[in-house]
Amino acid sequence: MAGTDTTRRALPVGGLAIILVEPQLGENVGTAARAMMNCGLADMRLVRPRDEAPNRYAIAAAAGADAILEAARPFATTADALADLHHVFATTARNRDMVKPVMTPREAARAMREAEARGERCGVLFGRERTGLVNEDLMLASTIVMAPLNPAYSSLNLAQAVLLIGYEWLLAVDATPSVQLPLGDTRPAVAEEVEGFFGQLEAELDNSGFFPTEAMRPSMWRNIRNVFLRARLTEQEVRTLRGVVSRLVGKRHRRREV
Amino acid sequence: MAGTDTTRRALPVGGLAIILVEPQLGENVGTAARAMMNCGLADMRLVRPRDEAPNRYAIAAAAGADAILEAARPFATTADALADLHHVFATTARNRDMVKPVMTPREAARAMREAEARGERCGVLFGRERTGLVNEDLMLASTIVMAPLNPAYSSLNLAQAVLLIGYEWLLAVDATPSVQLPLGDTRPAVAEEVEGFFGQLEAELDNSGFFPTEAMRPSMWRNIRNVFLRARLTEQEVRTLRGVVSRLVGKRHRRREV
Repeated sequence: MAGTDTTRRALPVGGLAIILVEPQLGENVGTAARAMMNCGLADMRLVRPRDEAPNRYAIAAAAGADAILEAARPFATTADALADLHHVFATTARNRDMVKPVMTPREAARAMREAEARGERCGVLFGRERTGLVNEDLMLASTIVMAPLNPAYSSLNLAQAVLLIGYEWLLAVDATPSVQLPLGDTRPAVAEEVEGFFGQLEAELDNSGFFPTEAMRPSMWRNIRNVFLRARLTEQEVRTLRGVVSRLVGKRHRRREV
Repeated sequence: MAGTDTTRRALPVGGLAIILVEPQLGENVGTAARAMMNCGLADMRLVRPRDEAPNRYAIAAAAGADAILEAARPFATTADALADLHHVFATTARNRDMVKPVMTPREAARAMREAEARGERCGVLFGRERTGLVNEDLMLASTIVMAPLNPAYSSLNLAQAVLLIGYEWLLAVDATPSVQLPLGDTRPAVAEEVEGFFGQLEAELDNSGFFPTEAMRPSMWRNIRNVFLRARLTEQEVRTLRGVVSRLVGKRHRRREV
């Protein structure tokens, strides 16, 4: 996990600015950097960090994402850190009684992506570990972001908050199918192949006297078919199953012959 | 952040089982517990944890969610930890070349909620920090969960992975509006109130000779109106703005009178 040269990753380009205001713990800064790398973000800005340079806890926690730590820029004030941004979002765990839109991370991510598509730069403010953002920081943001978490325990660890925002930002344009079935070298079986297996299986079940009565056969057979149909067999699995049946039958036949 | 009695939270009830296989670092177990509490989850199971009892790093990182650590159950094998579950999901950062459905966390959360609605129990497996789940663990799961992250750097910190799953699980039934405007004691202004302010403002702009020509007036006035319309004023803000205009005008009048 150490950030040696071999494990270092190239910095992603562009995207959201992540602004940590007065972060206190190196581990959190490092884990936040790792979360940023996970989400394809690179622009980390630190307002009055406790440690000027990333400490060893930060580098260990970054787990190879230390290029982000090294590129992180320190600022003396929150306003300085935001100066070049068109849109500033501020994260809070609780309602602050300000008449300012409060968005879920998902909705905020959508708004950020829309702004970025217009060529506008967005940034997100995260407060210090124990206390969050102060009102002077919140005043600099146009929008509050609040994750809909357990109302009795909604305060996120700093790096966890960075991950949630980055994750939603990444997913706001992600086109990964929600379910995939990796098939490797095989392909889904066509119906003819599956029915071929069913024909073999039903014949062997008949041979073996599996069905107690003709009246019970239809529902019993339907149930067995459904197991395999639900599984959406691959061509390779159909061949494997045919082999299983042949082998089972062959063994029994051999035993009978003995 | 320390887990004293005063900061302890009551355990949420039911929900997903979170199964950590061979977790090595107390901090990660603690932060995972905090993430579970954030997401309203309570059922933590540990397969061969390095530390039998939560160590001090775990308790510090749990930040008041240590009731989850105390209720966490250790198991000797992954199979034991899963015995009572109807559906087992396994998290991985990379494709494992198994013909097993791979779902995004969002889709998996939907599937889990559907199962829970039928009274079926679900659990999610998380592997050890450096290596993730081994194939023997993956074999016990019906479904793989893989977050669509930066393909060049997709390995999440253990507690971050727990948070992503818990967050999606929580949001799968969340009905929080994606944008809210907290209004405190006031209410959105009705059109009549906003137009009343516009009438005042336009009259005062006229009085002050703000519009250079009658030809330029319509577009200039439209632009000004749009600023306030976009802001979706509250009743209180309308009154405040009317006061602002009156005050500005009054001041100027007073100055002229002097």
